[in-house]
Amino acid sequence: MSQGERADELLEQIEKSDLTGIRLWLAEHRPYEIADELSRMSSSDAIIPFRLLDKDRELEVFEELDPSQQQAVLLGLRGQAFHQILEKMEPDDRARLIGEVPAKVATRALAGLSPAERKMTAALLGYPEDSVGRYMTPEAVILHRDLTVARALEVVRAKGTDAETVYTLPVVGDGRRLAGTIELGTLVTSDKSRLIKDIVDVFVPRVQATEPVESAARLMQEANLVALAVVDSEERFVGLLTFDDALEIIEAADTEDMARQSGASPVVDHYVTVSVFRLVSARAMWLIVLLVAATLTVNVMQAYEATLEQVTALALFVPMLIGTGGNVGAQSATAIVRALAVGEVRVRDLPLVLWKECRVGLMLGLLLAALALGIGSFLVGAAIAIVVGCTVIAICTWAAIIGSMMPLLANKVGVDPAVVSSPMVATLVDATGLIIYFSIARLILGI
Amino acid sequence: MSQGERADELLEQIEKSDLTGIRLWLAEHRPYEIADELSRMSSSDAIIPFRLLDKDRELEVFEELDPSQQQAVLLGLRGQAFHQILEKMEPDDRARLIGEVPAKVATRALAGLSPAERKMTAALLGYPEDSVGRYMTPEAVILHRDLTVARALEVVRAKGTDAETVYTLPVVGDGRRLAGTIELGTLVTSDKSRLIKDIVDVFVPRVQATEPVESAARLMQEANLVALAVVDSEERFVGLLTFDDALEIIEAADTEDMARQSGASPVVDHYVTVSVFRLVSARAMWLIVLLVAATLTVNVMQAYEATLEQVTALALFVPMLIGTGGNVGAQSATAIVRALAVGEVRVRDLPLVLWKECRVGLMLGLLLAALALGIGSFLVGAAIAIVVGCTVIAICTWAAIIGSMMPLLANKVGVDPAVVSSPMVATLVDATGLIIYFSIARLILGI
Repeated sequence: MSQGERADELLEQIEKSDLTGIRLWLAEHRPYEIADELSRMSSSDAIIPFRLLDKDRELEVFEELDPSQQQAVLLGLRGQAFHQILEKMEPDDRARLIGEVPAKVATRALAGLSPAERKMTAALLGYPEDSVGRYMTPEAVILHRDLTVARALEVVRAKGTDAETVYTLPVVGDGRRLAGTIELGTLVTSDKSRLIKDIVDVFVPRVQATEPVESAARLMQEANLVALAVVDSEERFVGLLTFDDALEIIEAADTEDMARQSGASPVVDHYVTVSVFRLVSARAMWLIVLLVAATLTVNVMQAYEATLEQVTALALFVPMLIGTGGNVGAQSATAIVRALAVGEVRVRDLPLVLWKECRVGLMLGLLLAALALGIGSFLVGAAIAIVVGCTVIAICTWAAIIGSMMPLLANKVGVDPAVVSSPMVATLVDATGLIIYFSIARLILGI
Repeated sequence: MSQGERADELLEQIEKSDLTGIRLWLAEHRPYEIADELSRMSSSDAIIPFRLLDKDRELEVFEELDPSQQQAVLLGLRGQAFHQILEKMEPDDRARLIGEVPAKVATRALAGLSPAERKMTAALLGYPEDSVGRYMTPEAVILHRDLTVARALEVVRAKGTDAETVYTLPVVGDGRRLAGTIELGTLVTSDKSRLIKDIVDVFVPRVQATEPVESAARLMQEANLVALAVVDSEERFVGLLTFDDALEIIEAADTEDMARQSGASPVVDHYVTVSVFRLVSARAMWLIVLLVAATLTVNVMQAYEATLEQVTALALFVPMLIGTGGNVGAQSATAIVRALAVGEVRVRDLPLVLWKECRVGLMLGLLLAALALGIGSFLVGAAIAIVVGCTVIAICTWAAIIGSMMPLLANKVGVDPAVVSSPMVATLVDATGLIIYFSIARLILGI
């Protein structure tokens, strides 16, 4: 509630053009809180408080904004302020931003940078999208392995303020080859006369700059790293991936997975400011595919139209049966997609997963069949109730198999398993489930 | 693939009781990699390599295991080893573990601890489950605000090795009241003669130990904090929540939300080792509820049985229509649940969200109706195709409204919005969608 009041307050002041009030509000809030409020406004509103920030905080707030919001703010700034912001951004953030803005803005942006900053940005831009290289910072305090602890601390003291992080210090040998890393905590608590090469952690994980950033972030999480050393193909140190970027990457990846699970493309923009048109286009594609796929269910129903005309009561249970199948399939698919994402299940576990889900599906089917039999007998009588009960058993088992197999197969052929959405599984189970239903009906009712 | 081979190798050595081989394998892998492999084994297999670890690494590996796996390992250890592990664990991890094991084991565990460790564990156990207090570590290097930087560095050097983190140093005034925190990086790069009170960040966020841990973790992510200061109700410093715990909390929360979204209870155990029975019981409850709710669809179909007997062709489109409604509803629900979880949408945004989703649903409906009209005309002729098209428009709009409203209402009445699962929305939309369908059919076909 206090958050809500906060936002109202700022918006009101903007609407009244109460500059003193806005300045006061800004002074009372921290950069991430300000960014949070700005994200919820139209960019023409957001630019007003943004311009009233003093120079240092301007950058801090800017770095907390989503990339799409950053673009909007940049486009609203005039020449001088535009370049000041860009010049002061962290190189990794800047590279990502420039990689995303329209080409014209990107050219203007790169042109305004100092040669050193331009070089750094261009280097980061050379890495493929979603690779570690785009997210790493090249600004680290690098220690040579032959230094003493005392000398290393002096290096940290001298260069530390320019670096994005000093918690993890890359240690290099000759030719900038990464020997390992050392934590600042270890450095501070070590005997000052010791040599870095004697205390460096040489077994610490490292990744290549071209690797996908999501797996690097999950590795940091697993290994509890505050920063992860990034090397090139010749094991030379090129940058650090920091924990705050890792947190954001994991959150974004989870958001994407959840959207995909519901059969929608991920939307990067903030929900409050995103346009209706963007939402529609993110959701329409899969809906169209699924609707076309659902034509199969119409075909199946048509194929059994004669059976339906004979026993109209069979139609009554169609929504319930396909709903149940879809639910069981969605549960299995979601469980496997998530287990794959966090690394609990690997492709080679396919037989184990199938066997497990098959039993789970069967047990759920038996349980639900008992219930369906009761409901069916009460509503339409024993004969059809038995058909419904048997169908529930078969559909649940089948749905659990389909739901668990599809993400694993997607992964096997190199497709993100998260695209195997619950609606996709449900649609597949719908059509096949109807065939099962009518086959059982014909068998049991002898029609 | 290399991961897969790794696991096979270790399991093979265990099956052959090849102790030398196991020792070699253990020496070649890092604690989190070992924990990852152990998690995938039965506890009777896992205990063998675990016992072969040397004492220091034993603890490191143990701390990387999931709580359920930790319990299994503890129960397999004899007296001495059991207490050694517990005594050396971080107090927050130990408290969580003891809070979860059977009472008999908990008593045995607490009894074996040294008085100081027992006191710390008991203090953490006093906090409610899922509160910050359970996850924080009380072992921080605390600085008094009147120290100089030089003196503070000496404190870090002396006490730093006992603390869980030295990156964020809580600064206290008299009576242990939290003044703010200082980052180790700032301390190292500051002039040695300056006073802590002049460089401490007094505006840094802090949380109370009784607050929910998930929101604290999300705050750390938003504010890019490597550790978050925790205070009691009188603003006294009581502990730090560290980024590695925050990462795990966010991952676990996302996993839970995803499971709930698919209409299943979250399962804490590793997918590979979890029993079929646990999976069934996590999934059965919602399936039963949804099946009973789906009885509504049978009732609706029954109410329109006369209409169905007159125009059997109407039955053909039932699976397609309710499937489409379910899909649109699931997309909306998932988008809003996620936006609520990451803080993009708040309860007070209800009107904004409804208005947006209403338009999104209508536009999707128009798009899909055109397609359905085409499919319908081709398969069964114009009259029924028009009924189907009109129904698609109405159902999509209705589903988007229901899907977005339910999570917000759940949140408003204090229920986790993630329990509003896609299957729940789909089931609700199914029954109401059928009423819409048959009403439109009667109107247009004049029956």
